[in-house]
Amino acid sequence: MASEKNDAVDKPLILVTNDDGVYAPGLRALFTEMQRLGRAVIVAPERDKSAVSHSLTMNRPLRVRQLETDVFTLDGTPTDCVSIGSNKVLERRPDLLVSGINPGVNLGDDISYSGTVSAAIEGTMYAIPSLAFSLSGESPFDFTRAAEFAGKLAARALSSGLPENTLLNVNVPALPGKEIKGIRFTCQGRRIYKNAIQETFDPWGRKHYWIGGGTVHWSGGDTTDEHALRDGYISVTPIHLDLTNHAGIEFLKKQWQF
Amino acid sequence: MASEKNDAVDKPLILVTNDDGVYAPGLRALFTEMQRLGRAVIVAPERDKSAVSHSLTMNRPLRVRQLETDVFTLDGTPTDCVSIGSNKVLERRPDLLVSGINPGVNLGDDISYSGTVSAAIEGTMYAIPSLAFSLSGESPFDFTRAAEFAGKLAARALSSGLPENTLLNVNVPALPGKEIKGIRFTCQGRRIYKNAIQETFDPWGRKHYWIGGGTVHWSGGDTTDEHALRDGYISVTPIHLDLTNHAGIEFLKKQWQF
Repeated sequence: MASEKNDAVDKPLILVTNDDGVYAPGLRALFTEMQRLGRAVIVAPERDKSAVSHSLTMNRPLRVRQLETDVFTLDGTPTDCVSIGSNKVLERRPDLLVSGINPGVNLGDDISYSGTVSAAIEGTMYAIPSLAFSLSGESPFDFTRAAEFAGKLAARALSSGLPENTLLNVNVPALPGKEIKGIRFTCQGRRIYKNAIQETFDPWGRKHYWIGGGTVHWSGGDTTDEHALRDGYISVTPIHLDLTNHAGIEFLKKQWQF
Repeated sequence: MASEKNDAVDKPLILVTNDDGVYAPGLRALFTEMQRLGRAVIVAPERDKSAVSHSLTMNRPLRVRQLETDVFTLDGTPTDCVSIGSNKVLERRPDLLVSGINPGVNLGDDISYSGTVSAAIEGTMYAIPSLAFSLSGESPFDFTRAAEFAGKLAARALSSGLPENTLLNVNVPALPGKEIKGIRFTCQGRRIYKNAIQETFDPWGRKHYWIGGGTVHWSGGDTTDEHALRDGYISVTPIHLDLTNHAGIEFLKKQWQF
């Protein structure tokens, strides 16, 4: 569907997606940076699909529309974009997938909800080296520095590769470039929310619950993603597809005899 | 919101949910079995929410409705049901969470898409021992035997506990009870889909893509969930919250020096 230019035959092919929709500035900053590394093609959701996690649309057909040269959109989730993007929109399996840049962090347990990270999980399932990028801070976001770092990390993924069946979840602190202290390879932290459901009422006085707010506590020690970011480092967490608690199998074999 | 009966004070409190909606027969079979073990309360989605993964609804308030004694529904995802169910509907944190019984397996990489499994992930985040149940086969499903096994495993989870930060993903083969050979503690298999996107056209002749179909290949050896099921065993896979590839951190520290 997307036709390769003759002068780009030897360039790496890079699929660019996100969960905030095709017009999100974080996506466009990432796209521009990826165009320096190879041929970059956007396949991104038409609309904001934050917190959709690894949702896959299987109950209806999806339509791909081309908006600009190498910019496509579809009426589905980030996971749909990766599946259809890498199998149908691109003429071959891409050499790299990048997702983001998400306005706001994706840290610890919360990555399980994240559309940004799930797109990279889907890419990894197709054996495409995949990176998810998020930027800390508050709106309005300036993606300039985060995009530069994304470019560096993507170039390194192309040259040095990733651990097998593993994606990288990258979070960049919202600091001026020179205040960023470097990169830390981290593990996923634990976050505990307190009072993260608010009560509200509809115009007829019926109680509703709104998930959000509350206070967040972090645990997991000083090797976590959250800790690195707090210390002013870019956090790079290798996330793998195997969710098995292998030590847990031994626990069960001992404790759960029937 | 749900009031505890006086005669049930010492009974375990069990939250029952699913991704197929509050009227699904697999949910009701599981509910009946859990009522033997303690006080069971359903908080389940109003509608079918299959393949929504770990989606969390944060952009609108959610309304809980009571349908019967100890049966509640809300207009959200399985993850919403667990979050609001365990924090707002139940008067205290439940002793156990069970999700299912899903009509159709949740094996290997596919559990990442699963609403059934994601409900158990959400429960685990709240430190609730959580089990997800799925039954292999085709419609019409007979949940009788699977529900009995769910009862046995749930009783064992209550008495022996689970590995820390770990849920159990349980798949039951669609075999007559006496043909089920036993239980195997397994790891998550790898599945590779081929040609899993179909092309179709709308009434105006425009091409659409429909995710589904194709052929499935499995890998991962004879210790996997898929292999156990194929051999006629109930597969019990411990799944943990920590997605970090810890060995991958060492790889990156060596290969990715900047």
